[in-house]
Amino acid sequence: MNQTETLTQLKAFVRQSATLESVLATLEWDQQTYMPDQAGEHRSEQVAMLAAMVHQRKTDAQLGEWLSNLDEGEFAGGDENDDATTVRMVRRAFERQSKMPESLVTNLAKACSKGQQQWARARHEQRFDLFADTLEEIVRLKQQQADAIGFEASPYDALLDEYEPGMTVAKLTPILAGLRSDLVPLIAAIADSSCHAPVELLHRIFPVAQQEVIGRQAASEIGFDFERGRLDVTHHPFCTELGPDDTRITTRYDESFFSGSFFGTLHEAGHGIYQQGLRSAWYGLPPGTYVSLGMHESQSRLWENQVGRSQPFWQYYFPKVQAAFASTLQDVTVDSWFFAVNHVAPSLIRVEADEATYNLHIIIRFELEQSLIGGQLSVKDLPEAWNQKYRDYLGIEPANDAEGVLQDVHWSAGLFGYFPTYTLGNLYAAQLFDAADRELGGLPALMAQGEFTPLRDWLHEKIHRKGQTLDAATMARQATGEELSHQALLRHLRAKLAPLYQLD
Amino acid sequence: MNQTETLTQLKAFVRQSATLESVLATLEWDQQTYMPDQAGEHRSEQVAMLAAMVHQRKTDAQLGEWLSNLDEGEFAGGDENDDATTVRMVRRAFERQSKMPESLVTNLAKACSKGQQQWARARHEQRFDLFADTLEEIVRLKQQQADAIGFEASPYDALLDEYEPGMTVAKLTPILAGLRSDLVPLIAAIADSSCHAPVELLHRIFPVAQQEVIGRQAASEIGFDFERGRLDVTHHPFCTELGPDDTRITTRYDESFFSGSFFGTLHEAGHGIYQQGLRSAWYGLPPGTYVSLGMHESQSRLWENQVGRSQPFWQYYFPKVQAAFASTLQDVTVDSWFFAVNHVAPSLIRVEADEATYNLHIIIRFELEQSLIGGQLSVKDLPEAWNQKYRDYLGIEPANDAEGVLQDVHWSAGLFGYFPTYTLGNLYAAQLFDAADRELGGLPALMAQGEFTPLRDWLHEKIHRKGQTLDAATMARQATGEELSHQALLRHLRAKLAPLYQLD
Repeated sequence: MNQTETLTQLKAFVRQSATLESVLATLEWDQQTYMPDQAGEHRSEQVAMLAAMVHQRKTDAQLGEWLSNLDEGEFAGGDENDDATTVRMVRRAFERQSKMPESLVTNLAKACSKGQQQWARARHEQRFDLFADTLEEIVRLKQQQADAIGFEASPYDALLDEYEPGMTVAKLTPILAGLRSDLVPLIAAIADSSCHAPVELLHRIFPVAQQEVIGRQAASEIGFDFERGRLDVTHHPFCTELGPDDTRITTRYDESFFSGSFFGTLHEAGHGIYQQGLRSAWYGLPPGTYVSLGMHESQSRLWENQVGRSQPFWQYYFPKVQAAFASTLQDVTVDSWFFAVNHVAPSLIRVEADEATYNLHIIIRFELEQSLIGGQLSVKDLPEAWNQKYRDYLGIEPANDAEGVLQDVHWSAGLFGYFPTYTLGNLYAAQLFDAADRELGGLPALMAQGEFTPLRDWLHEKIHRKGQTLDAATMARQATGEELSHQALLRHLRAKLAPLYQLD
Repeated sequence: MNQTETLTQLKAFVRQSATLESVLATLEWDQQTYMPDQAGEHRSEQVAMLAAMVHQRKTDAQLGEWLSNLDEGEFAGGDENDDATTVRMVRRAFERQSKMPESLVTNLAKACSKGQQQWARARHEQRFDLFADTLEEIVRLKQQQADAIGFEASPYDALLDEYEPGMTVAKLTPILAGLRSDLVPLIAAIADSSCHAPVELLHRIFPVAQQEVIGRQAASEIGFDFERGRLDVTHHPFCTELGPDDTRITTRYDESFFSGSFFGTLHEAGHGIYQQGLRSAWYGLPPGTYVSLGMHESQSRLWENQVGRSQPFWQYYFPKVQAAFASTLQDVTVDSWFFAVNHVAPSLIRVEADEATYNLHIIIRFELEQSLIGGQLSVKDLPEAWNQKYRDYLGIEPANDAEGVLQDVHWSAGLFGYFPTYTLGNLYAAQLFDAADRELGGLPALMAQGEFTPLRDWLHEKIHRKGQTLDAATMARQATGEELSHQALLRHLRAKLAPLYQLD
């Protein structure tokens, strides 16, 4: 077989694997949305069966043979760049998989299964010690994983690279340190301000049926395509892809809290717009796949925060919300509403944090998990290290480990190197929004008129359509003309929050 | 390996195949209920991939090898009857599959795919000739299938046996002929009666939200378990099994027609109760699988008709319906309501037919498809043969082929031998209901008090729990003490309809 024939076979095989994975995604979506209460046991059997098939395909020797015969250089340049990307990224994934000894894969799966159960119990009983031994084992296995995969400077790089290809501790540390040193005083100043956001407005009564209408309408207005997707209700909101024309997002409703479902829906719709903007012709292959978790998060954050928490957005959208909840909001002005949705205050729980403090929660986790993987911090000292950082960066302290070190599921599931992608998302979002603003000649004016299509199309062109043809940092640099930095995010926060909180 | 070890391996393999099939069922359920409009193309790819895997497993040579080493006699008798059943029925299915040449399987799939498209267009344009050639080809291929599978008396037996194992033309013909000769004059007498059911009551306004509540409540009352199942909305209602604890039924609502969703829901709930009554420990294996389509239909018809259209049921349930649709039904009596839901009149469309005339629609199809497969009737003469039978049995005639010979999808999908299972269901339902009535000491009194559990549990014991350990006819004989006959159904219809229509 020549190179082209080999590539054709490889592409068909990989695309079929993606189709099989999309079946798995369908089972998982149903499990979260509509599956009857007692059907869980059989669903686990279905999922285990499919997952084993998918795993088998990803490590299939045939794949290795095709790859060893393929030279991506053959496909480089011009229109064939998609083919070169395919070879490069399929090889990358196959090599990562191949470097992991089967025993390590099995041990990690076991430890994480045990870990998640223990973590749930430990959190419930507010007792870190119930989870400590298994966490120690997970950390040890993740260190082994880093060694197996290999790294240049830091073992943490090998883990980070899984979620954010190309990103390293060396690149990320100065940026997050810079963000931290600017954010800590900003947040302290806000906490000291005598201005208070009227958050109580968000806790009035918002009937769920209307929340659903308004949320669906907002998702549709910013560009989520309901002909190629759905919005349903789950306990933990998410976005998943069941196929190239089948992107499903979820939310949850609380009658006495407007923001949860509204901004949650914008957030998931942002993820969904990325999925819907990928090139369908390359479905299941690297040129038709999102580039990194950080970039994915940038798309959700951009629509949630840069758009959804902006003054111009509410100038356009508040009359609609006010009409939908007429008796609830008749006495409310757009200015007080805008201030309410931009409430900033140090708090203990990451998933409930506001746009500004959220990043400090991430930086704390990034610093701690680096020390754990690097061996500078032992698991037994983790809770106190956690609490110390909350005191230092946010000026508050958890009353117990449930609202401290035990709040997130990630580490119990072996997800080390994942947290920083959340803040990377915020950084990319701010830089991309600025670039789009410059190129499109002023987004505020467009948003104030409810014109979101230019921004969505700009993101389609600069990010979504590119798939994995570039790494995320390069893609962002080409789109924005800038290196990754914390300046745009900080400018965005200062520009919005300083007037609201009357900071100098 | 000894017999027991071989059987253990075979059972694990077959159960895994069933799990894979249940994944397929999940994809199909989602497609009918919630899938976004544009997601169909990818869904077809997912389904094709899974279907190929399932087909491969069903004809896997390993299965043949295990079967050739297994002697069901080894497992016969006592507690091991389930194992003997497993060997017997897995062998039966494997042998049927193996007898079909690959070329015939492929040709049938192609012809039916083309057939269904042409049929849809032919029906839309009311032109049988657009579909005739392909139907001829399908008939020829079904004849080849009958020859390949083999039969003793009639080629039609080989096809019927697919859906109703053990049933033959020789057994069925006299029963359906007897039913026809009793039904034709009964229906004619009703058509001549000066009494008219007040059907217009069913066409008042019934808000969908309340229909949904009432339908769900009724399904639950007769014993459908919503912890192990769901009710959703689809264009064509159905019941499907996604797992041993995951039975999903569907319905559709029409604001100006009460019966469609209400009796449709009872019907599908009846199917669902059968599925939920199977032994979960034998999930995916013959002892935990429904015995035949006729018996399945008997369970839906029994709850829909013997229960749901009975006087005692409405004595109990009409006050609830009246309360749910207070402004709509305040002037209606239970007697007129009971008459309305038992409206009988000859009509052209099978799926809209009432409880009595329905069987004549089936008998017509049974007679015609036997003649087609047997070669006594040619496809070109089919429309006129159809119309003649409608004149003879129901006294009416289709104005065009869309409301005549083109109304059902079945033949275009290669489903020959399937139609008689509908009337078999009605026959079994009537006999089972009578037997339960005798053994439980009077079902009318129980139903009038809303006590449906004794009947459901009786069906669980006599039918559902038995899986495929007996064939349907034997199971029915053991449960009722009678041979299959049309007498019980006729008694049931006469007893209810003669007073309503004041027949002699």
